[in-house]
Amino acid sequence: MEPVSAAVSAVLPAGGSGERLGGATPKQFCGLQGRPLVSYAVRAMERVSWISDIIVVVSPENIETMKSIIEKYGHKRVTVVKGGITRHRSIFNGLKVFAENQSSNRLLQKPEVVIIHDAVRPFVEEDILLKVVMAAKEHGAAGAIRPLVSTVIASGEDGCLDHSLERARYRASEMPQAFLFDIIYQAYQQCTDHDLDYGTECLHLALKYCKTNAKLVEGTADLWKVTYKRDLYAAESIIKDSLSQQICIITDVKEAVVQAGFLLHESLKNQVKVEAISISLSKNDSHLQNIFSGECYNFLCINDKEYATEEIQKLVDMLEKSNVPLLYPVVLILVHLNISENISFSIGLEELTKIKKFAREVKKKNILVYGLLIQYKVTERTWHIGGDTNTPIKANFCLSWRQKDLSLQHPLYSQKLSKVNNFVWEMCSANRKT
Amino acid sequence: MEPVSAAVSAVLPAGGSGERLGGATPKQFCGLQGRPLVSYAVRAMERVSWISDIIVVVSPENIETMKSIIEKYGHKRVTVVKGGITRHRSIFNGLKVFAENQSSNRLLQKPEVVIIHDAVRPFVEEDILLKVVMAAKEHGAAGAIRPLVSTVIASGEDGCLDHSLERARYRASEMPQAFLFDIIYQAYQQCTDHDLDYGTECLHLALKYCKTNAKLVEGTADLWKVTYKRDLYAAESIIKDSLSQQICIITDVKEAVVQAGFLLHESLKNQVKVEAISISLSKNDSHLQNIFSGECYNFLCINDKEYATEEIQKLVDMLEKSNVPLLYPVVLILVHLNISENISFSIGLEELTKIKKFAREVKKKNILVYGLLIQYKVTERTWHIGGDTNTPIKANFCLSWRQKDLSLQHPLYSQKLSKVNNFVWEMCSANRKT
Repeated sequence: MEPVSAAVSAVLPAGGSGERLGGATPKQFCGLQGRPLVSYAVRAMERVSWISDIIVVVSPENIETMKSIIEKYGHKRVTVVKGGITRHRSIFNGLKVFAENQSSNRLLQKPEVVIIHDAVRPFVEEDILLKVVMAAKEHGAAGAIRPLVSTVIASGEDGCLDHSLERARYRASEMPQAFLFDIIYQAYQQCTDHDLDYGTECLHLALKYCKTNAKLVEGTADLWKVTYKRDLYAAESIIKDSLSQQICIITDVKEAVVQAGFLLHESLKNQVKVEAISISLSKNDSHLQNIFSGECYNFLCINDKEYATEEIQKLVDMLEKSNVPLLYPVVLILVHLNISENISFSIGLEELTKIKKFAREVKKKNILVYGLLIQYKVTERTWHIGGDTNTPIKANFCLSWRQKDLSLQHPLYSQKLSKVNNFVWEMCSANRKT
Repeated sequence: MEPVSAAVSAVLPAGGSGERLGGATPKQFCGLQGRPLVSYAVRAMERVSWISDIIVVVSPENIETMKSIIEKYGHKRVTVVKGGITRHRSIFNGLKVFAENQSSNRLLQKPEVVIIHDAVRPFVEEDILLKVVMAAKEHGAAGAIRPLVSTVIASGEDGCLDHSLERARYRASEMPQAFLFDIIYQAYQQCTDHDLDYGTECLHLALKYCKTNAKLVEGTADLWKVTYKRDLYAAESIIKDSLSQQICIITDVKEAVVQAGFLLHESLKNQVKVEAISISLSKNDSHLQNIFSGECYNFLCINDKEYATEEIQKLVDMLEKSNVPLLYPVVLILVHLNISENISFSIGLEELTKIKKFAREVKKKNILVYGLLIQYKVTERTWHIGGDTNTPIKANFCLSWRQKDLSLQHPLYSQKLSKVNNFVWEMCSANRKT
């Protein structure tokens, strides 16, 4: 990505009431996989290194809610600002923070370019942000557009069709938009009360008050605004889908463990993009770091030590340092391979308590840890679980994929599986199947 | 619903290539819960008693696909017609069938009013269909509209904003639309090649060629058009959601069974809308028939006979006669309650084969049958499964909620459940949790 040679900050109006959604919770605070929508939009800004400050504008009654979201999900560079009674008044309040430097918490520098984005458009990529910012730098204003999905028509006073618009000439105006700060701020300062109360379109203000014709930038389909309940469903499915497209199998360098990883790789490779690496976790490994900075959100770590506490901690640290868990939850499945002949094993209450506590802690960092204890017969060179096919294995920690309660389940849960790879696969593709 | 005093038929253009969806399969043939989208739209028309004929217009290469869908899902009153190279040409072909009576299969009567709807809008209700038909009868043409979600803008030749439209004055034109047949057919006959090739809006043709200003009817949010992949996700979630909102528990009149039904009702009532009725299945019961004509899609039938073949057949017959399985799959869970003290039981291969065959047959009628064998201790007045908490119970037919393969699973599947109500609930709310 080319460097941006301008000071850039962002304003996210998040003051809407979400009445079209039909629920009590404003849509920006509705949970997707347990995380509020607004947190996704904030993350999307936050992971762009050249965006300095992120102003989230919320209605007065939601300030504490927003602050607790920032606290809970560890958002950085975010300032919460009290919104006005309309969208334009809220954006204006957000811009004032830069111009008047009125924020009590910290000094915010006035940016050269300001991005305006919605809290309810969670999937904005760096690419489109860069495009609108560069276009705004050149033209003074810029905004993402999309083709119209439906024909737009004008109705007469009798409730009948007056005329329909030629679809090819018109576009839907979407977000993000970007402006030279001085232009949009000047527009808001000159703005009539009527525009502040009834308008919604920032590009229109820049044109009307500053004679700035915004550059229109073709956006991607995923910039759409979460408006109706069905959009929440769609957003949730998009998140799940993006999470389940790839899995990385990490094994230590012991032969039996490498072999298990290889077999699992072979079983999975026709169903999902899968990478398998064998490393010594006691050394730094650049290959692993590369994977951790990629698009993979599912990691399956196979080990023959039952409580490889240090190794696990190291993996979690590496994941945390990467940007991966910033956007979506990362799933880390710890498979403890029991290669002894003794097929009966158990876990002590103390160990379990320790592991559960660990899982709860890293969950706060958006890393979901699950454990699975598996009996593996090296001699047969297959994933053979338990003795005969009628004997249930003991999966000591139940893998429960993306359930509401992501903490580890009851340790005595028993489930018979003919092959562990089916199980892992089922987990990764849960959203496709259900 | 007031009766419609006009002959009404419908044309569903289903010839699109679905390029915006980004997949190889045109979106109207994409599966939602295993059933193609177009089948939902056809069902939506089919369950409206006053719509006489349904013309589905598909591109030449998809005629066989469409015919097999009609066969597979038992659609009635449907005629498949070969489409043209554009949307307007396809609709015109559909209308010609009535005007020219060219269909080789059967005689189609020219309707007074024709509904035009999209194959990719699966959730059209009778109410809105009635509204557009009545309005078309009065005004000659009518169409559903929705408020604009985004501001609509016009771009200049330089790719910059020319002007934005005042959102309040404009509407998105959606489907269904309805026309006096003679008006829309006359419009198509007079239509220029340019309009046939580049236009998309039927209301526009009625205005341009017949001076008919269509009446605009405010539609509901669920009329939206499945356009992008995210819309498929949304549609699938809407279907799942509508399926999981209610459950009806049916028990026979034996005391232990009624008691089990009562306990299950008590356990579920805070989580889902649940109704419990006790009936003798050997008699006709109007209460059951009322439920079968309602909005419930989940039935749980508790019986103490292991193979209550006659009773099951009767339930299935009643369900089939109702309109319930026409729109969505109906789930019928047969719980065979074992109230004897002997906690070990099994099922013979022959019985299993018979039940599996039965399930496969009724699946074709959109009724999904699952069986569950449960040990119930009357004395303790709780759902007690198995002996101690470490002994897995045998659920002889695995309940596998809305998996791709809906046939009964391996009979020896073992799963430990502390309470059966958790299980049933998990099944009903699968879409909310995953």
